[in-house]
Amino acid sequence: MIQRKSTKCIHVGSVAIGGDAPISVQSMTNTDTSDVAATVAQIHRLEKAGCDLIRVAIPDMKSAEAVRSIRDSITIPLIADIHFDWRLAVGAMEHGAQAIRINPGNLGGPEKLAKVVDAAKIHKVPIRVGVNSGSIEKDLLKKHGFPTPDKPDALIESGLRNVALLEGLGFHDIKISIKSSDTLTTINGYRLLSEKTDYPLHIGVTEAGGLIAGTVKSSVGLGILLHDGIGDTLRVSLTRDPVEEVRVGFELLRSLRIRERGPELISCPTCGRTRIDLFPLAAEVEEYIQTMETNVKVAVMGCVVNGPGEAKEADIGIAGGHGVGILFKKGKIIKKVPENELLPLLLSELKKIEEQGKGRGPISGSGS
Amino acid sequence: MIQRKSTKCIHVGSVAIGGDAPISVQSMTNTDTSDVAATVAQIHRLEKAGCDLIRVAIPDMKSAEAVRSIRDSITIPLIADIHFDWRLAVGAMEHGAQAIRINPGNLGGPEKLAKVVDAAKIHKVPIRVGVNSGSIEKDLLKKHGFPTPDKPDALIESGLRNVALLEGLGFHDIKISIKSSDTLTTINGYRLLSEKTDYPLHIGVTEAGGLIAGTVKSSVGLGILLHDGIGDTLRVSLTRDPVEEVRVGFELLRSLRIRERGPELISCPTCGRTRIDLFPLAAEVEEYIQTMETNVKVAVMGCVVNGPGEAKEADIGIAGGHGVGILFKKGKIIKKVPENELLPLLLSELKKIEEQGKGRGPISGSGS
Repeated sequence: MIQRKSTKCIHVGSVAIGGDAPISVQSMTNTDTSDVAATVAQIHRLEKAGCDLIRVAIPDMKSAEAVRSIRDSITIPLIADIHFDWRLAVGAMEHGAQAIRINPGNLGGPEKLAKVVDAAKIHKVPIRVGVNSGSIEKDLLKKHGFPTPDKPDALIESGLRNVALLEGLGFHDIKISIKSSDTLTTINGYRLLSEKTDYPLHIGVTEAGGLIAGTVKSSVGLGILLHDGIGDTLRVSLTRDPVEEVRVGFELLRSLRIRERGPELISCPTCGRTRIDLFPLAAEVEEYIQTMETNVKVAVMGCVVNGPGEAKEADIGIAGGHGVGILFKKGKIIKKVPENELLPLLLSELKKIEEQGKGRGPISGSGS
Repeated sequence: MIQRKSTKCIHVGSVAIGGDAPISVQSMTNTDTSDVAATVAQIHRLEKAGCDLIRVAIPDMKSAEAVRSIRDSITIPLIADIHFDWRLAVGAMEHGAQAIRINPGNLGGPEKLAKVVDAAKIHKVPIRVGVNSGSIEKDLLKKHGFPTPDKPDALIESGLRNVALLEGLGFHDIKISIKSSDTLTTINGYRLLSEKTDYPLHIGVTEAGGLIAGTVKSSVGLGILLHDGIGDTLRVSLTRDPVEEVRVGFELLRSLRIRERGPELISCPTCGRTRIDLFPLAAEVEEYIQTMETNVKVAVMGCVVNGPGEAKEADIGIAGGHGVGILFKKGKIIKKVPENELLPLLLSELKKIEEQGKGRGPISGSGS
């Protein structure tokens, strides 16, 4: 359905990005990177949520040195995020960072950048050129103005200029991001960038905000780009536990049938016809399926009469009301039970499905 | 930026839908409609959140009769949702419903539908033809198969057939919805429908799920449609307090700069560089701005050095770290304070902004 834009393929550790590789979901830790125990604990929670790649901030040499111990304790590739100080970039790579994110233009000049690029070549580490609307060079702001939906040019030229700095040093193992906190600027910026380059693109809306506003902005912005076939790896940015970023990232890919991980819940919003307390029931099911990896559609409906028909596409579902509950599969009623037995019945059925599904593992990355 | 698809304009009470009218945000109560006090209390909360139109389920005559008392206690137009029983549709209109939502084909035959349409003409009440993927006629499922992203045809033909039933009775005061719980089916269905009709469209993803998954599915589905210029009124469907549906609806319109209501929060996701406990701070600001109506961009950043620059587009913002806090406006630092004075300072500034903004009211509906 979605025709993915053709891009070069690069590798961050074992994870391929671009080309036909599954669109990967990444996040960033918010612990003090030099606190290895806290950082590793957070990454373990992110790995469990399906996170494909993790980025850590490197604000000082102690953090760069911590990269080795962190990497030894985790299974997903580790990316080091560096601003301004070329020594931290080199240090992070020497200590095992599998990719770095920098703005090549702000490391202190051509000689220092050359040292970073040399280290990247030696360690076979790709570089993300990571431009934000807030970090654009002054001359480009003067030339184009601050990026807007109608004129995101400064973002694009900043991205391409920084890429050219790397290319000038014979380096091509690159991915690019040009993020804005404005959804339309992000969409239009990436659309234009995508026409001008075939390096893989890391997409995201930056400083998107809290859980709800941030989820909406990221879903609209990244959803439109992904539907256009643009984007090879993504980060949802939320002022929240990074585990939520990963969760939203996968929901986003699932909504467009790009990549599915774990069950999908279909549940009705309830209405004046509902005769069952559906919200806590749906919330319990939603919590439970976070622990599952099998890709199955689960329905929780508030109406015994309309529920099975309206949720025909669900592999398994429950509906309740007036004390009676039903279990249905693909629209067909399988069992009637008293309403209070409904949740335990569904959970035990889901447990069976997960056990049968094991070995198949998550249905990850059907590519484009 | 977004070229809105041209549609006819209809009116639900005082609210225009279609044409150049602002895209309206609606929701549905989940109280027992015949419990007037509970239903009115919920609608008052929805009105406060900005809800433009409210729908109530009419499962029985007691609910139809309650419409009068509910309508007398609220300020936004009231829509009655009826399935199967034509008498409930007529009853709801006699008791003051300002629009009805039906499937004309399932009211028990042409004579009964004629009675409903007669009542709609007498009371000058528009009708939403509301088709769902779960309620499609058997012959259409046989002809087209169950609607899928590649072949949403059954949804579209069901919608248009039901519209034709009304037109056959000389009735044209119509809006249409064809919802699926699948995001891509919803997108492709509405895109095709929009080419075939110029009645205004009510858009939504049905049974979208819980807060996060439902917000993502609705944001992606409705976001892509709105960005295409499709959709004249929308409902976000969540298995949650309907107030959240309205909140997500407005965030969605804001993200595409279609319609703005109240402040926007920009906040960074925090990283290993952050030296302030930003999540509770951002959450408090997010809660506070829910009470505001003035359209202002507020930033909450975790880094005194990068914060003001990265949030240059914010009208007002704070950043903190290492015990120091700063207040900035449009990227310029206005004041330094101890970190613990940061939140009270921002809240008092926001209070001033809201007081100055009063009278201007919410910046509602810049049309397309």
